[in-house]
Amino acid sequence: MATSPSRSGGRSARIRADVHRAVAQLVTEVDVESLTLPLIANRAGVHPTTLYRRWGSVADLVAAVAASRFTGDLVVPDTGSLRGDLEQWAAEVATDLADPETAALLRAAVGSGAQGGYSCIADRIEQLRAMTDRERGRGAVAVPEVLDVADALLGPLYFRTLFGDGPGDPDRARTLVRRLLPQPS
Amino acid sequence: MATSPSRSGGRSARIRADVHRAVAQLVTEVDVESLTLPLIANRAGVHPTTLYRRWGSVADLVAAVAASRFTGDLVVPDTGSLRGDLEQWAAEVATDLADPETAALLRAAVGSGAQGGYSCIADRIEQLRAMTDRERGRGAVAVPEVLDVADALLGPLYFRTLFGDGPGDPDRARTLVRRLLPQPS
Repeated sequence: MATSPSRSGGRSARIRADVHRAVAQLVTEVDVESLTLPLIANRAGVHPTTLYRRWGSVADLVAAVAASRFTGDLVVPDTGSLRGDLEQWAAEVATDLADPETAALLRAAVGSGAQGGYSCIADRIEQLRAMTDRERGRGAVAVPEVLDVADALLGPLYFRTLFGDGPGDPDRARTLVRRLLPQPS
Repeated sequence: MATSPSRSGGRSARIRADVHRAVAQLVTEVDVESLTLPLIANRAGVHPTTLYRRWGSVADLVAAVAASRFTGDLVVPDTGSLRGDLEQWAAEVATDLADPETAALLRAAVGSGAQGGYSCIADRIEQLRAMTDRERGRGAVAVPEVLDVADALLGPLYFRTLFGDGPGDPDRARTLVRRLLPQPS
């Protein structure tokens, strides 16, 4: 309220925050099939026309919320070894996925189409790339490819979250790293 | 049309087949958020009331279609070794997931809630159990647990399908088995 409504940057950012928050709440309350722009607009307290104009469709809006929610939310660890970095990072991903709100947004983003799914993991892949690149920079050989690391760590964690009874505890996530990199690096 | 409409078993089965087919088509055409029981009823040529009465909600209907589609659709191989069985089976799962209609139904089922996701993989887990149990029956030791096999094989295949650009080709699926079971068993 300190920001004047006449400053469109401030108002625009506030609408965005309200709409993102409304989506994050609603995906925990209703089936994704029941998610409509008017419903989201009502919860956010904005006019539906604003949502149609700015985001176009529920699918595009959910993808935008997922991209925002799953970008820059985890810090890339720097423990001195790839194994240590991945163990800490995988444990944090598992803890995040164990949150019912996180899982609900993930389901909604996947349900809304291919772009929605990609929005959830693009930054996770970049974080894996940063860790494996740093390991190569230390002169390590036989560092696994990013997509193989994603297969071994994100594969099971996301599979269990979407199809099973949750990602498992942080220690189980660390076990995935130990299977991928049996020898301390 | 050989079946008399007065035989409710035949009519009921026909309605079920029409409705399942309508869902399988529609998930490839519209966002899951646009999937409604009236839309499905219209495509299937049945009255919406029938769908409300029989399936209750889009989420329950999509879960039922997924359970039907992903049950008994793959034959459990019997090659004489767990490694051979899993290589053949993983290649078939990858081929199935590469079909855009399969991926679309998977997305819709995941988007429609936790039950929807589980409906897609319950039979896959039973198939893995049949293969690992048979291997133990041959007297093999150190046979991995079913959930660890699911992590190693289904994890990457489903993760890539929902979040990346597809499950990869059958040979890449066989590579996942070779990582899990490095020695011929």
